[in-house]
Amino acid sequence: MNSHRKLRMGMIGGGEGSFIGGVHRIAAFLDGQIELVCGAFNKDAAKSKKSGHDLFLPEHRVYSDYDEMLKSEAQLNEEERMDFVAIVTPNVAHYDPAIKALNLGFPVIIDKPLAFTLEEAVSLKAKVEETGLPFGVTYTYSAYPMIKQARAMVKKGALGKIHKVLVEYPQGWLTQKVEDTGQKQAAWRTNPDEAGISNCFGDIGTHAAHLAEYVSGLKITEVLSEIRPTMSGRLLDDDANVLLHFENGANGVLMASQVANGEENNLKIRVFGDQGGLEWKQEDLNSLLVRDHGNPDKIYRTGTDRGGYLTEEAMLHTRTPSGHPEGYLEAFANIYRNYALAVRKHKFGEAYDEEKLDFPTVDDGVKGMALVKAVVSSTAKGNQWVSTSS
Amino acid sequence: MNSHRKLRMGMIGGGEGSFIGGVHRIAAFLDGQIELVCGAFNKDAAKSKKSGHDLFLPEHRVYSDYDEMLKSEAQLNEEERMDFVAIVTPNVAHYDPAIKALNLGFPVIIDKPLAFTLEEAVSLKAKVEETGLPFGVTYTYSAYPMIKQARAMVKKGALGKIHKVLVEYPQGWLTQKVEDTGQKQAAWRTNPDEAGISNCFGDIGTHAAHLAEYVSGLKITEVLSEIRPTMSGRLLDDDANVLLHFENGANGVLMASQVANGEENNLKIRVFGDQGGLEWKQEDLNSLLVRDHGNPDKIYRTGTDRGGYLTEEAMLHTRTPSGHPEGYLEAFANIYRNYALAVRKHKFGEAYDEEKLDFPTVDDGVKGMALVKAVVSSTAKGNQWVSTSS
Amino acid sequence: MNSHRKLRMGMIGGGEGSFIGGVHRIAAFLDGQIELVCGAFNKDAAKSKKSGHDLFLPEHRVYSDYDEMLKSEAQLNEEERMDFVAIVTPNVAHYDPAIKALNLGFPVIIDKPLAFTLEEAVSLKAKVEETGLPFGVTYTYSAYPMIKQARAMVKKGALGKIHKVLVEYPQGWLTQKVEDTGQKQAAWRTNPDEAGISNCFGDIGTHAAHLAEYVSGLKITEVLSEIRPTMSGRLLDDDANVLLHFENGANGVLMASQVANGEENNLKIRVFGDQGGLEWKQEDLNSLLVRDHGNPDKIYRTGTDRGGYLTEEAMLHTRTPSGHPEGYLEAFANIYRNYALAVRKHKFGEAYDEEKLDFPTVDDGVKGMALVKAVVSSTAKGNQWVSTSS
Amino acid sequence: MNSHRKLRMGMIGGGEGSFIGGVHRIAAFLDGQIELVCGAFNKDAAKSKKSGHDLFLPEHRVYSDYDEMLKSEAQLNEEERMDFVAIVTPNVAHYDPAIKALNLGFPVIIDKPLAFTLEEAVSLKAKVEETGLPFGVTYTYSAYPMIKQARAMVKKGALGKIHKVLVEYPQGWLTQKVEDTGQKQAAWRTNPDEAGISNCFGDIGTHAAHLAEYVSGLKITEVLSEIRPTMSGRLLDDDANVLLHFENGANGVLMASQVANGEENNLKIRVFGDQGGLEWKQEDLNSLLVRDHGNPDKIYRTGTDRGGYLTEEAMLHTRTPSGHPEGYLEAFANIYRNYALAVRKHKFGEAYDEEKLDFPTVDDGVKGMALVKAVVSSTAKGNQWVSTSS
Repeated sequence: MNSHRKLRMGMIGGGEGSFIGGVHRIAAFLDGQIELVCGAFNKDAAKSKKSGHDLFLPEHRVYSDYDEMLKSEAQLNEEERMDFVAIVTPNVAHYDPAIKALNLGFPVIIDKPLAFTLEEAVSLKAKVEETGLPFGVTYTYSAYPMIKQARAMVKKGALGKIHKVLVEYPQGWLTQKVEDTGQKQAAWRTNPDEAGISNCFGDIGTHAAHLAEYVSGLKITEVLSEIRPTMSGRLLDDDANVLLHFENGANGVLMASQVANGEENNLKIRVFGDQGGLEWKQEDLNSLLVRDHGNPDKIYRTGTDRGGYLTEEAMLHTRTPSGHPEGYLEAFANIYRNYALAVRKHKFGEAYDEEKLDFPTVDDGVKGMALVKAVVSSTAKGNQWVSTSS
Repeated sequence: MNSHRKLRMGMIGGGEGSFIGGVHRIAAFLDGQIELVCGAFNKDAAKSKKSGHDLFLPEHRVYSDYDEMLKSEAQLNEEERMDFVAIVTPNVAHYDPAIKALNLGFPVIIDKPLAFTLEEAVSLKAKVEETGLPFGVTYTYSAYPMIKQARAMVKKGALGKIHKVLVEYPQGWLTQKVEDTGQKQAAWRTNPDEAGISNCFGDIGTHAAHLAEYVSGLKITEVLSEIRPTMSGRLLDDDANVLLHFENGANGVLMASQVANGEENNLKIRVFGDQGGLEWKQEDLNSLLVRDHGNPDKIYRTGTDRGGYLTEEAMLHTRTPSGHPEGYLEAFANIYRNYALAVRKHKFGEAYDEEKLDFPTVDDGVKGMALVKAVVSSTAKGNQWVSTSS
Repeated sequence: MNSHRKLRMGMIGGGEGSFIGGVHRIAAFLDGQIELVCGAFNKDAAKSKKSGHDLFLPEHRVYSDYDEMLKSEAQLNEEERMDFVAIVTPNVAHYDPAIKALNLGFPVIIDKPLAFTLEEAVSLKAKVEETGLPFGVTYTYSAYPMIKQARAMVKKGALGKIHKVLVEYPQGWLTQKVEDTGQKQAAWRTNPDEAGISNCFGDIGTHAAHLAEYVSGLKITEVLSEIRPTMSGRLLDDDANVLLHFENGANGVLMASQVANGEENNLKIRVFGDQGGLEWKQEDLNSLLVRDHGNPDKIYRTGTDRGGYLTEEAMLHTRTPSGHPEGYLEAFANIYRNYALAVRKHKFGEAYDEEKLDFPTVDDGVKGMALVKAVVSSTAKGNQWVSTSS
Repeated sequence: MNSHRKLRMGMIGGGEGSFIGGVHRIAAFLDGQIELVCGAFNKDAAKSKKSGHDLFLPEHRVYSDYDEMLKSEAQLNEEERMDFVAIVTPNVAHYDPAIKALNLGFPVIIDKPLAFTLEEAVSLKAKVEETGLPFGVTYTYSAYPMIKQARAMVKKGALGKIHKVLVEYPQGWLTQKVEDTGQKQAAWRTNPDEAGISNCFGDIGTHAAHLAEYVSGLKITEVLSEIRPTMSGRLLDDDANVLLHFENGANGVLMASQVANGEENNLKIRVFGDQGGLEWKQEDLNSLLVRDHGNPDKIYRTGTDRGGYLTEEAMLHTRTPSGHPEGYLEAFANIYRNYALAVRKHKFGEAYDEEKLDFPTVDDGVKGMALVKAVVSSTAKGNQWVSTSS
């Protein structure tokens, strides 16, 4: 078996009009380690064909039916068959292709949230454990170099005992009811049939929660939420204010909103411990502010020349020298790069530093779904504390 | 009666070692409209004398007993007597001198929180109404030029209907138990006998709440809080996470902390409406960010040359041209300037634009005390919603 | 002689319509150490009278003729006479009142530039040396706490050997020909009869140059300039690009402009040495960025609680705790405070730490005038290097 | 001829240890429109082979001798042959492979500066004109979305007549003599035999100059420079201060340094016109500040959802929605994307909007070389004005 080759990726969803499909492809291509070999980009055959054509795929490996794609690929010989599949459909269409791919032996990388319901998520996790296949979930923001740095510093105890975590994810794009204007993204996200029990918290609140746990190294054990559709006529939440309890007694606040008019996407996290605090925000993603009351604030900066003070965890996720700003796509590519290492290990037995080259897995996906359920439940119960393990 | 003269101020508290006493004096002196004529700076006669001496006061107008000072001043003739008294003692020692001053006919300006208990506050309010005397409470942050601008813009409807308010006041100075090291400020603030039922929320949470109401023009009707002493051995809260309900249906989050390690004092407010959003933070106090999703963000800036686009409310609270940064002391001085106008009106009948040259009054003080009580009560009840009018 | 009293200040110029007159008064009043006792605010008697009245001065100490004021004050007895005089007239009217005040034994504090010509400046310096009177020149920007910190750090060698200094002072207010609209400030500054041989460089370039020398501790020895009136019809420069040579072989660039459309007043300095670099800008005046290539950047911050890491020089010029932003007026007040100490020492023999509580003197004023001459000369000679000692 | 395929790229230079080689590959791969098919990565055969292997190239298309590669590729049939070649060797090794590639009919994309001497550059230009082949030079910074926006706005007259341009490119990495420690990048750049007549100005000053001309739309006609090796023992400049004259009478300053200790790579440009000013800096690359004195500053922001106010020029160079930060690699990819369009047009006749999808060409390369020569000459002549067309 020839292992000296790019990994071959198939894709389900992500055709024309999909924002995230294109992002996944750039992330996969960026390092020259992965090539796209097949896709079921759209249920509409003509549209899927068009996408496949634009992506230079041979016609016979472009499908409208992902079931057909998975079966066909499974029958190809090893030298041609895709190595893993990226699933970038809306939430509601995650479970079925994922479970089928796993059943056919294909590793999966999937957009978050993992599934439509917690039950689906749990079922997927069982399947992943059963099959032992690499399974990635693209909680992108955990893959920024400075987030790797932050996590590593907290882990090493640089901040002492953590007692407070503040995380926020403000957006403003749903302040107006753009779903009524035919905006595709807005339409499915605000539709319970496609988005599930939550829009805002499910979409961006889960990113914020994942980041909070990832950086602090602490599990969120309880939530008390007020989520709601702010704009009249909307069925799902477009705004969420959530109090958090963490396993070690730390507390915190998670704020996520799609009606924070004028805000773009400025995910921000602050972690406070008895020995120090840190702050990171996506708008200035290549900086990490580290501080304590008695000393000058320090700004840690991304860069391949920053090995003198950055942790190995950060350095392994950095591509350019200091002052050559990295961005969102590079973080996304970090997930694909690490996921590809897991696939190579699974397939070719190539070892690598799994702890430092980590990526979000099905466990993160399940935790995210459990959190959505708990947050929705807390509000339904009149803003009471709800356990995230319920 | 000669009205063409500086106003004469007396001061209770604010001797050596008091941070806020010096601030009040600078604020009073800055515009050259007020002079200090007497003081009871400390209960310790020697210390009070020392402070009076340093402030160039004649010995006979320096007291250790404020009661004595108030009575003595009341007996002086009109051409010598103080016109108003500034009370800058700790919370626990607010009520008595204030009520006595009012009873003797002296207008009062007092640091926040207004009193030690809500009952005291309500009693003070009744006395103010009975006497009709000008009464100011130094919620400083409402007096920044860009806060005046923000409030005026919201009032005019520039943001449309407000649906969300985020306000935070993070400090880190109590992360370590500095009260055990003899730090005077920390000692009294963390001591229930001196600070009352709340430390963190009472001290800085109330500033944040006042700002939220001032800018949004909306009353906070309900709170759901989690406040607590984070550091072990502390009796009062040093941290507060509070969900807010406003009168018009808007909601929000108020976060105040003294254990946000590394944070200084970066009070920040964001207000979101269906037509726009705004953001202001004390670290960049001369800027106001105004935005909505469809247009470039706009930065409004302080400056006496900004009359072309700033509101009259902002211009009336600005002293320097654009790019000559104003600071905290100037905001404090704005309160003294406006309060002095009220005293002059009361005393000399000089009219002025009371609406645009406003300052926080006993009503704000009472609201602050009611809020502290509601916030403490919410946590005591297991993080339930509590009405602020209870 | 009673020395336990406020210092008594007289003022020449600074009546209604003067921006800088009000600034000087606030700066003088802010700390409660100085009182205004007399003034010749305007050559127009009615206007001067009006200003004096607004400032609560007794009529008999308000003058229209500064000559008369100086003579009258000189004849008052010690318990009434002004202790020093602040001169805040346009450049053209600096020399005469200053020399007369000195001749009558009055210490002088004066706005920059020191005089109308270098010759006047040199003559004033001789008079100051002859009389031994305290003489201050308000190069304000050197009095910010973080500038004190920067200078002290450079002096201690924290940056190693300095090899490059970049300083800029961009303004945009003269992009349009506002002098044609009757704007008073613009009118005199662009008029050679009132402003002298330079407008932009004389007004703000000298501030930048002073700051460069003050922070670096290095004298500018040569300049190569291109200054010019950018807007047609203007006689004096409104823009200046200047290459700098410093005494130790360091070089640098000074850029000052009044036609940098949209810029406010963001004076900025960067100093680079072989062991480190620093950056400060007025828009974020309470921060000082200190860095070198191998370590995280550090942000030093103003605050009375920053004694743990700030130098004594910085701490002595700080009034509020960290996070309570100081501004331009406080920097200006620092100059008045230190100047007042010099007057007290001269008058009452009170010693103080003259090195750490410094203020710009007649020497700085002369250097500024020499620099203006050299810069104008360099451009006149076709952009050649010109010595600043010529 | 099958035109529905990825373009096939060959690469000369860029093997292990080369920073820029990896950047070119990421830039080429990112959009999935280009594949690498051959390379002469290193003169050392083993090293080149290793690089080719790591890049999954077949052994027979990996060379140590670029001459051999070019000839071999030229002999391949159309369905296999590379479509263009990327040259990423040090300056000294640009001309020969470029001219040979052109002679064999291969389009070239090359790193800047274009060549080792102006003469080589002029010769290359002649060859490009003779052959009519697409020729790109990677002045990366001109390809940021907000730079496209800035240029388009200036072109449309949004700033009025431009009178001043400030551009700076500060780095600190050569403050210490890292070339003595074996740092490869530092070694060749500071070596006249490899870098040519200039190090700092040639490397980064040319980037700054290109950006100044690109955004302002104005040609630099004259320069007056002071460049020098700051650190003792260095032969080439590591620092440059340059005064600029532009064709329309505007002037400006260009500052580039490698000894600005602590600075990373914060390329910054400001353009001032009589109707407005703009500011952009690489550290905040997704924002463009647009302002004039009479109105609030505006912040234009990158984003695929910003079509409401961004120009088409900006939108065509944007990949992610607002708030999903783009970075340096995406700008580089923009150049490859546009260059690929030119190759496709040349090869397949596919038309596209050449004006809006522009990239730096051999003309820019020649201008850059002429500028280096003029800057070096100006300093040699004692800091005199030198024409850039000389």
